[in-house]
Amino acid sequence: MSRAAAEAADATDELRSFRDQFELPAGVIYLDGNSLGPPSAGTLDALREIQDEWASSLVTAWDRWVALPAEAGDLLGETLLGAAADQVVVADSTTINLYKAAAAALGLRPERSVVLIEAESFPTDRYIVEQLAGEVRVGSIDALDEDVALAVFSAVDYRSAARADMELITGAAHAAGALALWDLSHAAGAVPVHLDEWEVDFAVGCTYKYINAGPGSPAYLYVRRELQDVVSQPIPGWFGHVDQFAMEDEYRPAPGVGRFLTGTPNIPGTAAVAAGVRLLGEAGIDRLHQKSKVLTDLAIERADALLPSLGFEVASPRHASRRGSHLALRHPRADAVCDALARDHRVIADQRPPDILRLGFAPLYTRFVDVWDAMGAIESVGRGLAGG
Amino acid sequence: MSRAAAEAADATDELRSFRDQFELPAGVIYLDGNSLGPPSAGTLDALREIQDEWASSLVTAWDRWVALPAEAGDLLGETLLGAAADQVVVADSTTINLYKAAAAALGLRPERSVVLIEAESFPTDRYIVEQLAGEVRVGSIDALDEDVALAVFSAVDYRSAARADMELITGAAHAAGALALWDLSHAAGAVPVHLDEWEVDFAVGCTYKYINAGPGSPAYLYVRRELQDVVSQPIPGWFGHVDQFAMEDEYRPAPGVGRFLTGTPNIPGTAAVAAGVRLLGEAGIDRLHQKSKVLTDLAIERADALLPSLGFEVASPRHASRRGSHLALRHPRADAVCDALARDHRVIADQRPPDILRLGFAPLYTRFVDVWDAMGAIESVGRGLAGG
Repeated sequence: MSRAAAEAADATDELRSFRDQFELPAGVIYLDGNSLGPPSAGTLDALREIQDEWASSLVTAWDRWVALPAEAGDLLGETLLGAAADQVVVADSTTINLYKAAAAALGLRPERSVVLIEAESFPTDRYIVEQLAGEVRVGSIDALDEDVALAVFSAVDYRSAARADMELITGAAHAAGALALWDLSHAAGAVPVHLDEWEVDFAVGCTYKYINAGPGSPAYLYVRRELQDVVSQPIPGWFGHVDQFAMEDEYRPAPGVGRFLTGTPNIPGTAAVAAGVRLLGEAGIDRLHQKSKVLTDLAIERADALLPSLGFEVASPRHASRRGSHLALRHPRADAVCDALARDHRVIADQRPPDILRLGFAPLYTRFVDVWDAMGAIESVGRGLAGG
Repeated sequence: MSRAAAEAADATDELRSFRDQFELPAGVIYLDGNSLGPPSAGTLDALREIQDEWASSLVTAWDRWVALPAEAGDLLGETLLGAAADQVVVADSTTINLYKAAAAALGLRPERSVVLIEAESFPTDRYIVEQLAGEVRVGSIDALDEDVALAVFSAVDYRSAARADMELITGAAHAAGALALWDLSHAAGAVPVHLDEWEVDFAVGCTYKYINAGPGSPAYLYVRRELQDVVSQPIPGWFGHVDQFAMEDEYRPAPGVGRFLTGTPNIPGTAAVAAGVRLLGEAGIDRLHQKSKVLTDLAIERADALLPSLGFEVASPRHASRRGSHLALRHPRADAVCDALARDHRVIADQRPPDILRLGFAPLYTRFVDVWDAMGAIESVGRGLAGG
C-alpha cells in the first residue's frame, strides 16, 4: 500500500466519521490508545451529566446511580463481550476484580489447589494468583491436570498482542475439571469476544484502553450465570448485600453477579464506561475488528519494507486473526525509540521492558495515513540510532 | 436562639464565604452532606483540569498522575488527619481499604485471632471483619484481652454521631497487645483527628461526605509509619509494586504505605479529593469543628423546644464535644418524616433503619438559618403525622 492508497483507504473507511468524536491534539499521531484511550465527546457529555446531577439532585441522584454498575455491565456485556444480561458488573479495578474472581473460582474447587497461568501474563494477574493459589503452575493448557482448579489467561497478550483461542482454552480447562478466568483488558473493544458461547466462567478487564473511559475508570467482572448463586467472593461490602439499605449486621450476598460489588462504586467513571461502550456499539465490534486487522496488516507491511535492517523485528503474530489491535516491535533500544518518536515526530507509543515497542491502532480514530506516517517515523528514528 | 439570632450568627460567621464555593439548588436545605457532599467550584475545576490533561497529554499525563494517590494522601493526612507525610494513600473504596488494612493488621498478630468491633459499627466494617477474623467479638474496650489481634472502631458513629475517644481506645488496644483500625468516614472533615499523636495503627475512610469529592470518589488508607515496612496486604497489584513499570513476574511490595495501592487508581476522583481537602484546609478544621458544634447545639435546642411532644427524641450525644457534625433524631416513622421533609419542605435529610432521622450539618455551607428552618419543617411534618 502506498501513502496515496492509505489516504484512499481513509476516504472510503466507513468508520472514518468516528474520529470526529475525539478531539485529538493537532499534529500528534496517537498510538497508545491500548494503554489510555482519549476522551470522546460522548464520554465528556456523560461526565458533565453526572456532575449536573450531582449538583442539582445531590444525594437523591443515588436513586438512579445505584443501578449504574449493573446497567453499564449489561451494556458492556451485550455490546462487546457476547454476554447476556445480568452477568457483568462495572466496579473496582481490574486488580480487585481479578482477586475477587480468582478467589471465587478457587472456592468452587476446594479439592484442588493449583492455578495455571501463562508465562506471558500481565504482572498483576500473576501476583494475584501467587497470592491466592496453593500452587501456581506457569504454562499452557498442556499443563492442565486433575490438580488444576483454575486457568488464568489473557485474551490478548499485553506485549505481543497474540490473541488466545478462548473457546479452545476454556474447553480444555473444563475438560480437565478446571474453571477458566480471562483477562480481557487488551481485547474488549478490539476483537470480538463471545463469553456466553464459549462458556467462559469468569472474566475481568479494564475500561481505560479501547473503551476510552478515562484514567483509572472502573473495571468490569463477568461471572457465568450458572455459577452466580453458588459462588462467593472474599470482599463483602454494602453494595454486594441483598438488602443494602437495611444496614444488617449479617452479610447476605445479593443474588446473581451483584454479590461481586463491594464498596461505593465510582459513578462518573461508570457513566464514562457506558458512554464509551455506546460509541463502540455504534461502530460495531465486527467492523472495528475488520478495520483493526487492516490497520495492523499495513503496519506489518511497512515494518517489513522499512525496518528489518534497523534492528526491528515484528514480535506480534503475522496472521491478522491471531492478533489484537496493537503491534509489538522488538528492538534492543525500544525505550530510546519510544522517546525519540514522541520528541521528534510527535508519535506517541509506549514500550514494555526489556525490548518491546508497542503501537496501538484503535480503529475508532486511527487512520491508515497515521499508520503509514508512524512507520516512516520509526524508520527515521531507527536510522538515527543506527547511525548515531 | 431566635431566628433573628440565627441570621445574625450567619452574618458574623467567619466561614460564611465558603458557602459561595457551592452552587446549591435554590430553595433546598441540604442536610445530607454527611452522605454525599455537594460539588464545590474548586472540585469542578480540578475535574476539568484532569479532563483537559487527559485530552491534551493523553497517556503522557500519567507521568504526573502516578504520584497523585500519594500526594492527595499526604495533603489529606496533613490537613485533616493529623498525619505526617508518607502515611496516607488515596485509592480504592473504603470497603477495599478496610479489607486490606484489617488483613494487614491480622498478619501482624499471627498468634491472635479475635477481632473486636463495636456493636454500632457500619455494616461493611462488620462484614469485613467477619470475613477475615478467626473470631469476631462484638463489644467495647472492656472486651479486650490477650486474644484480641485488632480493634475496629468508628471515630464518629454513622447513626448516632457519637464521637469515640480515639486516643483512649487506641491506648487500651495497645495496652492489650492489639492493634487499632479506625473508620473515619463520618469524622474526617467534621472533627479534628490526630492519628500520629494518638498512635493509631490503621485508618480508612471515604471522601464523598465532608470532603465533597463526588459519588464513589476514592477512599483513603493510613498506615502508621512504624508498621509500614513490616506489614503486607493481601491484594498485590502493579501500583503497589516497588518498580511498577519493570513488569516483573514477582511481586515485590513498594516501600512504605505505597504497598497498599493495588490497581490503577481513579485519577479524576483522586484530584477531586485533593481539591476538597484544600477547601477544608482553607477553612481550617478547628474553625469548622467549632461551627459544627454551634450548628448541632442549635439543632438540639430547637429539637428540645419543638419536637418532644411529637414523638421525636434526640439520639445523639448532648455534649457537643462528644458528637460529629450530624444529628440523629429517633422517631417511629423516620422514613415518612424524611420523605415528607423532602417533598413538602425541600429539606433533604436521610434515614437509617429502624427509626433514625439523620441530619447532617456540614459547616462549610450550612447556615444557622438552615438549621432553624429545617427544625421548623420537622415540627410541621411531625404535627402532620401526629394529627393525620
